[in-house]
Amino acid sequence: MLISEIGQFGLIRRISEGIAYTEGDVVVGIGDDAAVLRVREDRYLLGTCDIQVEGVHFIRDKITPYQLGRKSMAINLSDIASMGGIPKHAWVSLGLPLDTTVEYVDALYEGMKDETERFGVDIVGGSMAHMPDRLMVDTFIIGEVEPDLLLLRSGARPGDLILVTGQLGDSAAGLVLLLDPAMSCEEAYAKKAMEAHLTPTPRVKEGRAIAQSRAATAMIDLSDGLASDITRISEASHVGARIWAAEIPISTATRRIAELAHKDPLELAIFGGEDYELLFTAPPEGAEELAAAVEGETGTPVAIVGEIVPANEGRRLVLGDGRVVPLEAMGWDHFRR
Amino acid sequence: MLISEIGQFGLIRRISEGIAYTEGDVVVGIGDDAAVLRVREDRYLLGTCDIQVEGVHFIRDKITPYQLGRKSMAINLSDIASMGGIPKHAWVSLGLPLDTTVEYVDALYEGMKDETERFGVDIVGGSMAHMPDRLMVDTFIIGEVEPDLLLLRSGARPGDLILVTGQLGDSAAGLVLLLDPAMSCEEAYAKKAMEAHLTPTPRVKEGRAIAQSRAATAMIDLSDGLASDITRISEASHVGARIWAAEIPISTATRRIAELAHKDPLELAIFGGEDYELLFTAPPEGAEELAAAVEGETGTPVAIVGEIVPANEGRRLVLGDGRVVPLEAMGWDHFRR
Repeated sequence: MLISEIGQFGLIRRISEGIAYTEGDVVVGIGDDAAVLRVREDRYLLGTCDIQVEGVHFIRDKITPYQLGRKSMAINLSDIASMGGIPKHAWVSLGLPLDTTVEYVDALYEGMKDETERFGVDIVGGSMAHMPDRLMVDTFIIGEVEPDLLLLRSGARPGDLILVTGQLGDSAAGLVLLLDPAMSCEEAYAKKAMEAHLTPTPRVKEGRAIAQSRAATAMIDLSDGLASDITRISEASHVGARIWAAEIPISTATRRIAELAHKDPLELAIFGGEDYELLFTAPPEGAEELAAAVEGETGTPVAIVGEIVPANEGRRLVLGDGRVVPLEAMGWDHFRR
Repeated sequence: MLISEIGQFGLIRRISEGIAYTEGDVVVGIGDDAAVLRVREDRYLLGTCDIQVEGVHFIRDKITPYQLGRKSMAINLSDIASMGGIPKHAWVSLGLPLDTTVEYVDALYEGMKDETERFGVDIVGGSMAHMPDRLMVDTFIIGEVEPDLLLLRSGARPGDLILVTGQLGDSAAGLVLLLDPAMSCEEAYAKKAMEAHLTPTPRVKEGRAIAQSRAATAMIDLSDGLASDITRISEASHVGARIWAAEIPISTATRRIAELAHKDPLELAIFGGEDYELLFTAPPEGAEELAAAVEGETGTPVAIVGEIVPANEGRRLVLGDGRVVPLEAMGWDHFRR
């Protein structure tokens, strides 16, 4: 059986079912944004890794090495953020074709350093190897979180509201522009969307603020798209979800680029992925206050975009005209085409 | 300038010079077998990663997925062992071509689990991505060590003796056989050499015994070959080294395979690499006792193969006939051909 037949998530499920944790210090293993380990009484260690492959995750002449360095780190920082954690140290594995220049590697590290330094993270190690055909960057980040502040995918309960930081779809809109350079778009919009795609900002401050509020019940970062990532929360928490399309925060830039590309902006916001915003849940009585507090503390807007329902109600998208349609987990799957 | 012009070690040096550690908890960053971090008063955290790329580190039809899984973990466990540490948790990043079978991935994980379980290590996370053309396995392992037991590359002093666990060259001899299946070699020799190459045993127990003896001054694992790895110790410790060729432990299997391949067994033992034995140094007064103690505790033979000399005496190989020749760091460099 080929991996393309069961897909990335099928394969991850299969692997995690085959893994037993023999040591007592594994709080959460495979299946959340980061592994959670008990290394100290008062702190959990968090660890996560993520690969970027040329021609799969990025096109070499569409992203500068500096941007690639920043993004490689950002997507891992985002995973630590989504657990409510503080990122601490990073390692980098590089696969390099022989025709790579030293200057390219320098710029890649410059980007990685700039991205990590602003969050107080040090790059402390790594490995490098010859990789013919294509460049590969695999970054690994560890962080820590106080046990009582840890947020998992599995904590959502029916009745909880669903919240999201920032705006969704900008990254997908940036990708649309990147793949169609002939498209004529207002410069400010293009800049915003391209930046969201090429150098996303991991919501580390926001993740900490959400965790410290103690008002949230579950959290994940939006790497694969709202539809896919709420499915992860829904499956881990054994609940259903209802997303209110009209409440999804979508920027003017994304609306404009969608218009130019003859696409539905909602499609970019729900299925686009790579926004690296935080998606989290909170009981209804505290949700608005939580949104306001995070916004006040970090300057990042927070929107309430739906509600958690019992599992038997499934996952639904409530459209602006009141129609309710199934919310398919149509985000990115690496092994399906 | 191409990376092939400065080579892997030149590139690592360049990168590490550009990295500043802004946080006070980095004891050792880039440049040893694993990074060393102060996360607790009584324990250092160790972290290391290593890539295996199809067609570069392994040939897909020459190693089973089970063996590849074991080896991927073993080479990282070996890096923790070489710091005197106890490995604890592992993460796995996989790059998979779309035509990979689920059964292949299952067997790969089976190997990784078998290799980690016997050292009490849990696989707690990872990532996977589509990688066209070739398979890639990047494993990341963290471990811990008591601050006073930590062994670095930088602790060797003139006068220290140089010691090595096990026998050198078996892995290179196994590779010779693997690449020339027509070679007719006694089965027991072939088995020993192939196993050394395909499923090396990380010297975790031995590393702990050496560290706990408190008699050693520096340590590294033999991944690139004795000539290359003693150069790493020599550079980090600012000392020279003299290796006594006649004292290097070489198995009958390696001698026989070298004979069949018209090679010098010494060449396999010194430049072959991938033995994953431990290379360490100790003051002369305690070296023999240390060798005997480690051998007694673990069953693994330990040999004294040379001595540390002042830096200005360089690195030399003393041949069996008394001639002294320069010991070139002719081990594996990923970016030079």
